[in-house]
Amino acid sequence: MPKYSRIIATSLFAVVFGLIPSVSFAQSTLNGETAFILNTFMFLMAGTLVMWMAAGFSMLEAGLVRAQNTATICLKNIVLYAIAGVMYYLIGYKLMYVDVPEGGFIGSFSLFYNPSAEELALMAAEDGADAAEAAAVYGSSDYSRMSDWFFQMVFVATAASIVSGTVAERIKLWPFLIFVAVLTGFIYPIQGAWSWGTGWLDAMGFSDFAGSTIVHSVGGWAALTGAIILGPRAGKYGADGRIHPFPGANMPLATLGTFILWMGWFGFNGGSVLALGSAKAATAMSVVFVNTNLAAAAGCIVSMIYAALRFGKPDLTVVLNGALAGLVAITAGPDIGNPAIAMLIGAIGGLLSTIAIPLFDKVKIDDVVGALSVHLVAGIWGTLAVAIFSTGDYLAQIAGILAIGVFVSITSSIVWIVLKYTIGIRVDERHERYGLDHAEVGLEAYPDFEIRRAGG
Amino acid sequence: MPKYSRIIATSLFAVVFGLIPSVSFAQSTLNGETAFILNTFMFLMAGTLVMWMAAGFSMLEAGLVRAQNTATICLKNIVLYAIAGVMYYLIGYKLMYVDVPEGGFIGSFSLFYNPSAEELALMAAEDGADAAEAAAVYGSSDYSRMSDWFFQMVFVATAASIVSGTVAERIKLWPFLIFVAVLTGFIYPIQGAWSWGTGWLDAMGFSDFAGSTIVHSVGGWAALTGAIILGPRAGKYGADGRIHPFPGANMPLATLGTFILWMGWFGFNGGSVLALGSAKAATAMSVVFVNTNLAAAAGCIVSMIYAALRFGKPDLTVVLNGALAGLVAITAGPDIGNPAIAMLIGAIGGLLSTIAIPLFDKVKIDDVVGALSVHLVAGIWGTLAVAIFSTGDYLAQIAGILAIGVFVSITSSIVWIVLKYTIGIRVDERHERYGLDHAEVGLEAYPDFEIRRAGG
Amino acid sequence: MPKYSRIIATSLFAVVFGLIPSVSFAQSTLNGETAFILNTFMFLMAGTLVMWMAAGFSMLEAGLVRAQNTATICLKNIVLYAIAGVMYYLIGYKLMYVDVPEGGFIGSFSLFYNPSAEELALMAAEDGADAAEAAAVYGSSDYSRMSDWFFQMVFVATAASIVSGTVAERIKLWPFLIFVAVLTGFIYPIQGAWSWGTGWLDAMGFSDFAGSTIVHSVGGWAALTGAIILGPRAGKYGADGRIHPFPGANMPLATLGTFILWMGWFGFNGGSVLALGSAKAATAMSVVFVNTNLAAAAGCIVSMIYAALRFGKPDLTVVLNGALAGLVAITAGPDIGNPAIAMLIGAIGGLLSTIAIPLFDKVKIDDVVGALSVHLVAGIWGTLAVAIFSTGDYLAQIAGILAIGVFVSITSSIVWIVLKYTIGIRVDERHERYGLDHAEVGLEAYPDFEIRRAGG
Repeated sequence: MPKYSRIIATSLFAVVFGLIPSVSFAQSTLNGETAFILNTFMFLMAGTLVMWMAAGFSMLEAGLVRAQNTATICLKNIVLYAIAGVMYYLIGYKLMYVDVPEGGFIGSFSLFYNPSAEELALMAAEDGADAAEAAAVYGSSDYSRMSDWFFQMVFVATAASIVSGTVAERIKLWPFLIFVAVLTGFIYPIQGAWSWGTGWLDAMGFSDFAGSTIVHSVGGWAALTGAIILGPRAGKYGADGRIHPFPGANMPLATLGTFILWMGWFGFNGGSVLALGSAKAATAMSVVFVNTNLAAAAGCIVSMIYAALRFGKPDLTVVLNGALAGLVAITAGPDIGNPAIAMLIGAIGGLLSTIAIPLFDKVKIDDVVGALSVHLVAGIWGTLAVAIFSTGDYLAQIAGILAIGVFVSITSSIVWIVLKYTIGIRVDERHERYGLDHAEVGLEAYPDFEIRRAGG
Repeated sequence: MPKYSRIIATSLFAVVFGLIPSVSFAQSTLNGETAFILNTFMFLMAGTLVMWMAAGFSMLEAGLVRAQNTATICLKNIVLYAIAGVMYYLIGYKLMYVDVPEGGFIGSFSLFYNPSAEELALMAAEDGADAAEAAAVYGSSDYSRMSDWFFQMVFVATAASIVSGTVAERIKLWPFLIFVAVLTGFIYPIQGAWSWGTGWLDAMGFSDFAGSTIVHSVGGWAALTGAIILGPRAGKYGADGRIHPFPGANMPLATLGTFILWMGWFGFNGGSVLALGSAKAATAMSVVFVNTNLAAAAGCIVSMIYAALRFGKPDLTVVLNGALAGLVAITAGPDIGNPAIAMLIGAIGGLLSTIAIPLFDKVKIDDVVGALSVHLVAGIWGTLAVAIFSTGDYLAQIAGILAIGVFVSITSSIVWIVLKYTIGIRVDERHERYGLDHAEVGLEAYPDFEIRRAGG
Repeated sequence: MPKYSRIIATSLFAVVFGLIPSVSFAQSTLNGETAFILNTFMFLMAGTLVMWMAAGFSMLEAGLVRAQNTATICLKNIVLYAIAGVMYYLIGYKLMYVDVPEGGFIGSFSLFYNPSAEELALMAAEDGADAAEAAAVYGSSDYSRMSDWFFQMVFVATAASIVSGTVAERIKLWPFLIFVAVLTGFIYPIQGAWSWGTGWLDAMGFSDFAGSTIVHSVGGWAALTGAIILGPRAGKYGADGRIHPFPGANMPLATLGTFILWMGWFGFNGGSVLALGSAKAATAMSVVFVNTNLAAAAGCIVSMIYAALRFGKPDLTVVLNGALAGLVAITAGPDIGNPAIAMLIGAIGGLLSTIAIPLFDKVKIDDVVGALSVHLVAGIWGTLAVAIFSTGDYLAQIAGILAIGVFVSITSSIVWIVLKYTIGIRVDERHERYGLDHAEVGLEAYPDFEIRRAGG
């Protein structure tokens, strides 16, 4: 039985050379390499699903803007995803995760997050003669470094995607992209260091499983400050106090975007178990999938019923946002043991989000796609729900919501204001009325179609 | 070698406390926890692919209805997915799978399907001190309970998605959703108990690997009775006997929907191996993927050639449906060892479906998207094909097709008729001609586009 | 501990009967069956992502053609995927991979690639009594045969998808499909045998990890010869030397297609590690995912900046193609240890592709979607980059690029020319100006929408 002797030899080698410290998968009966592989592969698959959410936001927003602004929102969404990846590689990841002092505020200011020397040695080793190199890798980490980077990177892209919808239809392309670079390279990672990076909020007991606050509300606060500083779209709020609806141009695209987001959210919440190498992790992941689905379903159904009762008919955009609000709401605690509670959390998320939509309009904060209601309002709700229904601590949850809200709002405002008074953030009103696609991107989204100029 | 001593200690503990009964992964050389993880993760990944099919049906149907009914079909599709999940959680899963008597007709009438006490104990245990809790979980089940629930839930949603396409463009929103709730909470689970729930059809030897009959024909029968009771769309069948085509408004969306369904079907059929924790399961799953792809390819190509020969040109919608019919046809037996036979089964499925489309029109059964031809006709064919080409028993296959067909047709008809004579199931003809989007959802799907009113 | 005795008995049995030769996963500490399962499942998941790229090409091309040609391009794309699968099953896979002589030129000319006898025996064995059958399978191969077939098949489909975009809007349906059958059954597999099939280019040291040349340039050369022999679209190049832009009809679809391709590329490059059953494979796969993403991001950003500087505004189609060019460029060497170099490779790929687009127009080679710039130009660049930045050998890389380019160009030209002078490859100019959808497919892509006839 050469295999067993090889395993034993490798293990002995590893033990003798001190390569296998006690790591966190220790509790499972899996061999260390198997657990390493499963954890790594899980990050890659879940990360791919979350990457797909960037397409979901694109389609949702492309469906909810007017036809003359559609190419611009597509361009913004694919480029913001690209920028998020580059900035998080250049600086963001290390700020968030590397050498954050216990209870501290920020990680390492240094460029590039790369494979470890041990990983590079393993990749370069000859097949069949790499036992020591392999043991050095799986003995010192539960998963490959870059698989974790990939998974965390798609989260920062999500936060950026949230912003683009709110400020659509009147923001200039380039300042928006600069804002995204700052958000994904600095603002998001610094607040992320406080909690997921094991900084002060983590020490305080703040609990946000997959990021109702850390991802969704962060995007929400950045979007809120942007919407305020940018002002509403031309013609949105009439002098007579009337609110003019600017209906989205393409409802099936918005529906597709919502389905994509719903699908991607299984990776978002499921992958946030951060492991697959034990029965415990697999069991928790299953519960997370189910809760995620039921919360979305409940948010969808409740918002439909509420819209039907209040407005007479169940506006499709309200229902789509209701499902998304259910997803955002469960994101802080999708590992709750009772799926019925997850449904309740999602239902309340959908309801709060639906109620919030007209309130933002009332105070003339113009949110093109309803992202504030979905990501900020339901994000806050979901974070509180961890204290109400689960093991979360009220004080820590409120502290986290407030601290992150204040930090992101202030830093975002500074960036928006600097951009506003330097290169300007708003397109000419003439361009806005005629459509950003011509002014900013130089083409039409639907050139073969007869378009009735809507709104504006 | 502390790992081995830990494994041994855990195993001893488990054996002593009787936690490891003989379970079905016993034949593999994997350790029990590894198999548990792989089976569970497979259900989650495959289930995510099947969930994605809900988006596929949405896009297919959004592409195949007329522009003025597009938002309504989007709304129905996302809400039906939500309802299916909630109903299956509330009541359906237990009716189908829990405590079905051997050879029996129905499972347990009780609310909520939740994680087991052992699973909750494992999730709550401290990392590193959870060996006994973990052994209790993977020792008593091959996969986590909720991963199986998730996988089964997306199947019931598929059955519901089939209905929406057939009855589109004239059914009212709310009665449709009520029907979906009954279908997914009761009708589908009860017939499912007969076979997959190890009831009387299973005892008889009925074989339907991933549900040509149990999922697709069930959706088909429910749709057929709906189409008959509802009647055809206004203007579809002229007084002079002429059939008026109402072409779908958005062919790329329909194409996208078909691609999504094709992709999701790898999860649908592949995941129906129900395991990944052995070389046998992995080998079978590979064969299933290949057969699924080749059957779809053959259905696609054959329907194109047939349409070109018969109608002069290969109508895109026929080709899309041909691919789907190939998929439905192979679903009852995708584990057949010879992929060439799978191609043949798919080819015949595509052919039968293409031939069937005009026949439904001839008897004035108005099926907006061709779902009856695809899911019912090819579903029956695929179920018979298991007897013709594989290990299936003719009698059992025919018994299953008939019993399920009769049961679903009768129960569906009752629900449709009750709805018809209470709240009504059909929109006003005026609303139908003007479009359901205004009447039922209160918005337009494409408000910025100049629409020529097509059909009606 | 019955499990261990069973493992030992199985292993003994396998050793005695010579069923476990030394196979390549030998270096990992995983048991052979676990590695077999992980490798197999990885091929299936990665293959599903690559299959999804067929939908990506469909949506990209459907968005970039004019409205009157949209249904045709949808039809071509789904049918080409079907044909690629059938041809690769019938003949292609064996030509490429089975019995290629060491350093040789071609594999086995025989029909059908099916599961092995050992695999069929395992699938037929009783659960719990299949230890010997299982050992025979995982002892003789690292993964199931059909999982590898599936993964390789979706690659040949990708090569075919590249062709359809370039020759769109004027090629007839049937000759195009015949070309696809020859490309996927013969041309692609034969050149593939030279490298991945361990033929003469492999012996020479040619290195193309996931196919910058073997897949993307092959599609590019086939498309280039097609575009030349077919000629440009009517009205594209004016008599006065002016180039008339024919803008794509649906930008959000093109954006969706790009996102789908980006997502699918994680399977394309990640799966090309060809294993998951060791820490080494998992580590390499993570690096591949990250490099793939960063190269795409860099290509996207650089092409946007270049387009803005050169044309004043960042044309969305240029940016989408820039991201794709970054992906193509990194495909030959995505396992490079330094992600910053991957970014550089992607950036140069995006830049070269963007520069190339007007050059093709200058020589009146009419490429509807820019596929030549993306897949051929960036494919050549990426293959060279392996020599510049990594372990590749300049001579071998250039030899591979040239040999494959010459072979594919000559064989493709022969097929195109034979088709041209037999059944004809070009639609009537009248049909071309009115749109291929009516002439070739017999329906409209957007029948409910008022279309302004664009171009032509």
